[in-house]
Amino acid sequence: MKKNQKFALGIDLGGTNIKLGIVSELGKIVSKVEVKTEAHLGPKAVIKNIEKGIDEILKNKKIKLIGIGIGAPGIVTIKKGIVKSPPNLPGWDEIPLGSIIKKKYGIKVNVENDANAAAIGEMIFGAGKKYSSFIMVTLGTGVGGGIIYNGKLYRGEIGGAGEIGHISINPNGPRCNCGSTGCIEAYAGNHYLKESVKKDLVNHPSSKIWELIENDLQKVSPRIIQMAAELGDVYAKEIIFDLGVNLGIAFSSLSNVLDISTFIIGGGVAGFGKPLLTSIKTTMISRVLTPLKSRINIIPAKLKNEAGILGASSLVFYNT
Amino acid sequence: MKKNQKFALGIDLGGTNIKLGIVSELGKIVSKVEVKTEAHLGPKAVIKNIEKGIDEILKNKKIKLIGIGIGAPGIVTIKKGIVKSPPNLPGWDEIPLGSIIKKKYGIKVNVENDANAAAIGEMIFGAGKKYSSFIMVTLGTGVGGGIIYNGKLYRGEIGGAGEIGHISINPNGPRCNCGSTGCIEAYAGNHYLKESVKKDLVNHPSSKIWELIENDLQKVSPRIIQMAAELGDVYAKEIIFDLGVNLGIAFSSLSNVLDISTFIIGGGVAGFGKPLLTSIKTTMISRVLTPLKSRINIIPAKLKNEAGILGASSLVFYNT
Repeated sequence: MKKNQKFALGIDLGGTNIKLGIVSELGKIVSKVEVKTEAHLGPKAVIKNIEKGIDEILKNKKIKLIGIGIGAPGIVTIKKGIVKSPPNLPGWDEIPLGSIIKKKYGIKVNVENDANAAAIGEMIFGAGKKYSSFIMVTLGTGVGGGIIYNGKLYRGEIGGAGEIGHISINPNGPRCNCGSTGCIEAYAGNHYLKESVKKDLVNHPSSKIWELIENDLQKVSPRIIQMAAELGDVYAKEIIFDLGVNLGIAFSSLSNVLDISTFIIGGGVAGFGKPLLTSIKTTMISRVLTPLKSRINIIPAKLKNEAGILGASSLVFYNT
Repeated sequence: MKKNQKFALGIDLGGTNIKLGIVSELGKIVSKVEVKTEAHLGPKAVIKNIEKGIDEILKNKKIKLIGIGIGAPGIVTIKKGIVKSPPNLPGWDEIPLGSIIKKKYGIKVNVENDANAAAIGEMIFGAGKKYSSFIMVTLGTGVGGGIIYNGKLYRGEIGGAGEIGHISINPNGPRCNCGSTGCIEAYAGNHYLKESVKKDLVNHPSSKIWELIENDLQKVSPRIIQMAAELGDVYAKEIIFDLGVNLGIAFSSLSNVLDISTFIIGGGVAGFGKPLLTSIKTTMISRVLTPLKSRINIIPAKLKNEAGILGASSLVFYNT
């Protein structure tokens, strides 16, 4: 290990688990701990669990941390690290999580929305290193986003920016959980994608997906669709292609407005890999304004499973 | 006139006319000149015409200018004031307009894209004064936009940002001049709007629009639609309402991504006034994410006919 390296503690606060990791300034995780969130017990219990995780990961360690970074769902007010109404943490109205942790451990704490943290993570440690501006897209349960512009996170008026999952590509499209219609999340979100394939699969009786799920529609998943596509299944390939088209339509609007040409694609659904990225890129080149066409650049995220911890810890290095 | 006021020369470089005005730091135009652009004669002739206009407006004036601001079509590279491939100025590949004018007149010159200049104009002189972040929308031949974030113009990677007219609200929607489909400009741009009403009017034989255009479809215009609406014509009111819905759909996506809640609406089509703004606002409130709903604020632009000159001159005060 390089001497005199700096370390940060990254905390990925999820609805089910809290993942903690001590991360070097080079993006290497040197220690990891995971605890249950127990979100249903309310904020006090969740904070206790965060502290339990911190105590556990710091036990018997000589590493001196330069700070703690926390990636949290919901809208975060940077100044006091206030987490506001995160969708999957019931009872959290406005909790000054940053101040609470800072007070207890006497160390600098940076809290940020998890999608924004993922964007900063890619900028500091990942595929975004060489771009001064890019859009980080996380294709998971939802479609999350973070906007990096001239080396800085674009946060918006109250820190709610980057909700690219809620770009509507068709007002007559499927209803989205947010209450609107045709949001790209209602096409590309893990759950929506599964549901739409489950409904549509009967129209494709010869698809290899049937075999892979052993005729049990409950087993449909992005992983299964990917496996079928890799086996040459035409329908599975179509699903991935169409997903790329829909994402490309949404991203084209975004590129036109923001004049940002690089998109970094991460999250589980991004596992579709090159066929998905190619479909996104082809769609965008056909739709964006002329000055953007030659610049469109769609690349995979570099931080994979550990994106949450790395993104959270990157907040500390970003703010140093 | 207040003593010791500062003055700038604003130049609005359009495809047909070049409008020049000497503007005080309070946004008062004290002198105005207009010359023909003669765009078909190419950049050299156009620049000669700009200089002719400058010479004319400065003749016999004792006013000391602190700078010249130019609003130009196309993408502008700030540093040398390079105007790149403006759509309605043939032959302009990459013209360092800023440097040329600066060299000739020995005075600071700021060049900016005209839609961006309009946004800065509203920020410095107009309805945007009291907002640190807003989106300026110009509803004219096209749908132009400028993004002000934390008191600064958001320019994007190469200065092309703010193309909100090319947010697609429906991939199966009307074809846009840009080559894409369903762009909001293809619904709300002056020309598209007229064409769609001209086609649809036969389905509304009792509309008052028929009277106002004396049965001559060529006379359909936003002004006529507005007059019919003011006379209580149901179809004309519907057109305005639907336009607001479509704009509201596009702006909702934008608000979700940028976390900006104030939209300032200017340009000729904005003459529809309150019914249009109300329709935009109602649509947005029903579609944006929860943290935005209570903040949505749709207001008319303050700079009207002189927006071009005022926007151009505001570049000087913005950059002081």
